[in-house]
Amino acid sequence: MTQQNEFQRLAERLREFANQRVWEPFHSPKNLSMALIVEAAELVEHFQWLTEQESRELDAETLTQVELELADIFIYLVRLADQLNVDLVSTAYKKIELNERKYPVEQVRGKAQARQAHK
Amino acid sequence: MTQQNEFQRLAERLREFANQRVWEPFHSPKNLSMALIVEAAELVEHFQWLTEQESRELDAETLTQVELELADIFIYLVRLADQLNVDLVSTAYKKIELNERKYPVEQVRGKAQARQAHK
Amino acid sequence: MTQQNEFQRLAERLREFANQRVWEPFHSPKNLSMALIVEAAELVEHFQWLTEQESRELDAETLTQVELELADIFIYLVRLADQLNVDLVSTAYKKIELNERKYPVEQVRGKAQARQAHK
Amino acid sequence: MTQQNEFQRLAERLREFANQRVWEPFHSPKNLSMALIVEAAELVEHFQWLTEQESRELDAETLTQVELELADIFIYLVRLADQLNVDLVSTAYKKIELNERKYPVEQVRGKAQARQAHK
Repeated sequence: MTQQNEFQRLAERLREFANQRVWEPFHSPKNLSMALIVEAAELVEHFQWLTEQESRELDAETLTQVELELADIFIYLVRLADQLNVDLVSTAYKKIELNERKYPVEQVRGKAQARQAHK
Repeated sequence: MTQQNEFQRLAERLREFANQRVWEPFHSPKNLSMALIVEAAELVEHFQWLTEQESRELDAETLTQVELELADIFIYLVRLADQLNVDLVSTAYKKIELNERKYPVEQVRGKAQARQAHK
Repeated sequence: MTQQNEFQRLAERLREFANQRVWEPFHSPKNLSMALIVEAAELVEHFQWLTEQESRELDAETLTQVELELADIFIYLVRLADQLNVDLVSTAYKKIELNERKYPVEQVRGKAQARQAHK
Repeated sequence: MTQQNEFQRLAERLREFANQRVWEPFHSPKNLSMALIVEAAELVEHFQWLTEQESRELDAETLTQVELELADIFIYLVRLADQLNVDLVSTAYKKIELNERKYPVEQVRGKAQARQAHK
C-alpha cells in the first residue's frame, strides 16, 4: 500500500466519523482551522512552564499526553486537507524546496532567527 | 514503499534540513510547539473574516496560500513527532478509537458542541 | 485615581501573586507569550462550532465562561506588559493611529479582508 | 477621569474605527477571537527561537515590534469585551481571587506547573 493510500485511508475514516455524527455541516475550513489551533495550544500548554531541556526529556506520562495532542492536530490537519483537496505530503516537499532556497545554508547556519525574516 | 517509510523519509529530510543549518539546538519540543502554533495562526488568518461558506469556496490564489500553510503545520508536526519518537499515524488511529467511544453516534448526532464537553 | 494607576495597581497585584508563589522565574516573556496564546485558544474553543450569529447571542452560562477566558488573556497581557515595561493604553492608541493611516476609510469600506494585506 | 472611563473611551474609539469602515458585520465574537489569537501568535513568533533569558533582554527594535503586538492583542481584547459587554478589569480581579484559592501559596510555591492541573 502506498503512502498516498495510507493518507486517503485516514482521511476516509475521519470523513466517515464526521458523517456518522452529522458533523459535516460544522466542518467548514474556517471552523476546522479553529479546532486545529485549539489542539495546537493544548500542545503548547504542556511546554509553557518547562525549560527547553525539560521539553526534550518528558516523563512517560507527559509524553503519552503529548502524543495524543499531536494526534489531535494531525487529525484536524488531515481533515482540512481532505476538505480542501490538498495532498499534504507533496505540498510539504514543495515547501521544503522553497525553504531551501529561502534559507541558504551558508547564510543561516546557526541562526534560526533568520526564519523570522520571512515576514 | 510503506506509509511508515514515507513518513520516515519526510522526517529524515527535515532532520537533514535542520542539521545542515545547525538549527537542531533551536528545535527543542518547546520551541517547535511555538513554531507550530504560529503556522496554525497563519492558517486561521486566512479564514478570520470569511464566512464559513466562503471558506468552503476559496479562490485559486488563496487556496495556494492555504496549502502552503498546511504544509508548514505538517512540517513542524512531523519534526516534533520525530524529536519525540511518536508514530503519528498509529497514534491518530488510537485517538480516533478513543473519540468513537467518547462521542457515541446516537448521543452527539448533529451536535458538534458535544465535543466541548471533553474539557 | 487615573487609568494609568488602575493598570499599575492590577500589574502590581499580579506581580505579588507571582512573587508569593515564587513563579517569577517561570514568567519569562517567552513563557508568558505561550500562556497567553493558550488562554486565547480557550476563548477560540468556545466559538469553534458556533455560527457567527450564535457567537453574538451567547447564553448566560457560556458568557460567564467566556468572561473568565477574557480575564485570563488580560491577566497574562498585563503581566507581559509589566515585565517588558510597556504602557498598554498609550501603545494601543499609537497602533490605532497607524491603522487609521494604513486602512483609509474610502479604500477599505465594507472590506475587512483589506486587513490581510498587511502581511 | 476614572479607569472605567478610560476603557470606555478606548472601546468607543475602536467601535468608531470599525463603524467608519463598515467592519462591524465582520466583528462577530467568533471572528474577533480568531483575530485575537492571530495577533497572539505574532507575539509568540518573536520568542519562538529565543532562549528564555534572551526574551528578558530584548533589543530596542524587537521590543518596539513586541509592543505593537501587545497593542494588537489589547485592541481585539477590548473590542471583544465591548461586544460582549464584559468589564475586563473587574473580571480580572474576580479571576485573580479564584486563582488565589485554586493555587494556595504553600502548595504551589516554586511549582508553576501546578497550574496545569486546572485542566
